Amino acid sequence: MYYFFTETFPPHYLYFWIDMGHITIKELASRLNLSISTVSRALGDSHEISKATRDKVMALAQELNYTPNLYASSLRSQKSKTIAVIIPEILNNFFALAIDGIEEIAQQNGYHVLIYLTHDDHAKEAAMVQHLLNGRVDGILMSVAAETNDTSHIAEFAKHNIPVVFFDRVCDNFKTIKFVTDDYHSGFNATKHLVSRGCKNIAYLSLSKNLSIDQKRKDGYLDACKKLNRPAHIINCTQSDAENEQIIADMLNADKTIDGIFASVEKLAISTYEVCNRLNIEIPQQLKIVSFSNLRIASLLKPGLTTINQPAFEIGKQATVALFRALKNNTIFTKSEEIVIPSTLIARDSTAVKIN
Amino acid sequence: MYYFFTETFPPHYLYFWIDMGHITIKELASRLNLSISTVSRALGDSHEISKATRDKVMALAQELNYTPNLYASSLRSQKSKTIAVIIPEILNNFFALAIDGIEEIAQQNGYHVLIYLTHDDHAKEAAMVQHLLNGRVDGILMSVAAETNDTSHIAEFAKHNIPVVFFDRVCDNFKTIKFVTDDYHSGFNATKHLVSRGCKNIAYLSLSKNLSIDQKRKDGYLDACKKLNRPAHIINCTQSDAENEQIIADMLNADKTIDGIFASVEKLAISTYEVCNRLNIEIPQQLKIVSFSNLRIASLLKPGLTTINQPAFEIGKQATVALFRALKNNTIFTKSEEIVIPSTLIARDSTAVKIN
Repeated sequence: MYYFFTETFPPHYLYFWIDMGHITIKELASRLNLSISTVSRALGDSHEISKATRDKVMALAQELNYTPNLYASSLRSQKSKTIAVIIPEILNNFFALAIDGIEEIAQQNGYHVLIYLTHDDHAKEAAMVQHLLNGRVDGILMSVAAETNDTSHIAEFAKHNIPVVFFDRVCDNFKTIKFVTDDYHSGFNATKHLVSRGCKNIAYLSLSKNLSIDQKRKDGYLDACKKLNRPAHIINCTQSDAENEQIIADMLNADKTIDGIFASVEKLAISTYEVCNRLNIEIPQQLKIVSFSNLRIASLLKPGLTTINQPAFEIGKQATVALFRALKNNTIFTKSEEIVIPSTLIARDSTAVKIN
Repeated sequence: MYYFFTETFPPHYLYFWIDMGHITIKELASRLNLSISTVSRALGDSHEISKATRDKVMALAQELNYTPNLYASSLRSQKSKTIAVIIPEILNNFFALAIDGIEEIAQQNGYHVLIYLTHDDHAKEAAMVQHLLNGRVDGILMSVAAETNDTSHIAEFAKHNIPVVFFDRVCDNFKTIKFVTDDYHSGFNATKHLVSRGCKNIAYLSLSKNLSIDQKRKDGYLDACKKLNRPAHIINCTQSDAENEQIIADMLNADKTIDGIFASVEKLAISTYEVCNRLNIEIPQQLKIVSFSNLRIASLLKPGLTTINQPAFEIGKQATVALFRALKNNTIFTKSEEIVIPSTLIARDSTAVKIN
């Protein structure tokens, strides 16, 4: 990738052309009475330059607080030392914890983390991908927007040799490594848990039929309903909290036999709590609730929320370890591989048979 | 800033030297049977090149999916089109909401947002600042780490002509524009609220004496205690939830007359709830609690938490508007200016005189 450039000009010149700091290589050279190319090579630690000269240049550079320009070093190494994390939202404990895991590994590798929020909007996601193709980042960690079913924009990364790792919300038809939790199994288990606590008529609150995790959790719910002889009700919710509260209220008003709610994501459980407060529906006496959630304060809610806790920090961490493996080997992922890190159901008062 | 560079080589050459995409300008030139410098200038929309040629070049560039290199355009415009947000943590509703506000304005301006987490560690913050000095970002939004009392690292930004806007957690001795809430006044009000609900002995939970917001909230608390003839107790907490629970439990066990808690930040209120659950202390009957917090589900806690709601989204938004004003005018902030956006106390059951 270097060939054209090195054939034409010696690469150490770059230091000099594109220094944008307040102290330039030109100034260093003039103060030291050396040629610009000597200073540039000395800063690049070139063995063409004597150790004595290199030391002299380094000392003055340090004294004058000379900052080598990012773009110069990026051009030399072809690395931006930055990875991007594309996620739907930040006001969500799963993603906040996953970012903590991502950051831990990025910092160990001396990398910076760019965070992009899609707000579950496919057009926004596609625009962000377009923007990231130009060398701004070396690799991508991605949890796709709920709206995304066309992955052609993501395929552009492969064309630009940028490795992509999916976590949590993945696209089945895009070939790469994917870090997920056991969504189907957890969906089955959550439904079984509600039935074991006496629920006869359980509704599943879905965020989006295009969302991989939602599809799998729903499949687990449907299979459990079938196996345990319970009717199934899929309630399609939206991205808007206000709309969801209306949808949930309408459902509970229309069918008084609903005695269990399985919320596919945390915010739908929160909306259900709000609706129950408003309609004076008692949890768990009249309605039991279980939700996928990483809410730290689930136990402090009234009543404590039964959650399926995802290993968010671990998923973020392991996905990032895989990304750095690809970056070090200068490869991209071309095969589908799924790594499953299981979730844990934590039963609290929202699904209790009797509450104290 | 361009002078040296333009004197030596025509700037359009840059497109050609540093294109790292899979389609190079060299290749475009060869396919079109044009010189590299003509193609480069055509892509740069130079009027030295005829419209017919420019159109021909643009058409092929589009057809072959030519992506201009970020660093090339950055060198020309001297802009990275990126701003950095340096904050202590992400698992905090205040910062999550502020980021939403920041993002809205950044997107409108076609900018990207880099998020940096300091985890309230001064050394980490200083290292991040060092890394950001090299042209990676055009501007900085910053909420300083609780540990930060030396601001010499932040002063480096000014030396590099990078504007810095503070929000929420600011340094008094660093001159720039600062977006804050009315911490002193809200601290005074929160204390008065607890007294009006019958509290005789209120403890203030402090996160760090080096934190500007903590200092001001504490001053408001101390002045209210003095004015209303109540004793004052400052309890110094730490960054660790486990340690804080121990500190709060020890305090409540040692002094049974404590009947009110004013938590300076959300996580200290959560720790207090945990401790009360463990020690079977009834809120609000035995202990009333008020906290600075942007927790969406404060009302769903057991009991609902009385909060001082900060205008987090608005603070993030207005701080970013100011930053873009500086970027457009190519200036930095050299004077201290404080913009105060007030908070609102929302009374809930945690400070109720009687609970239903």
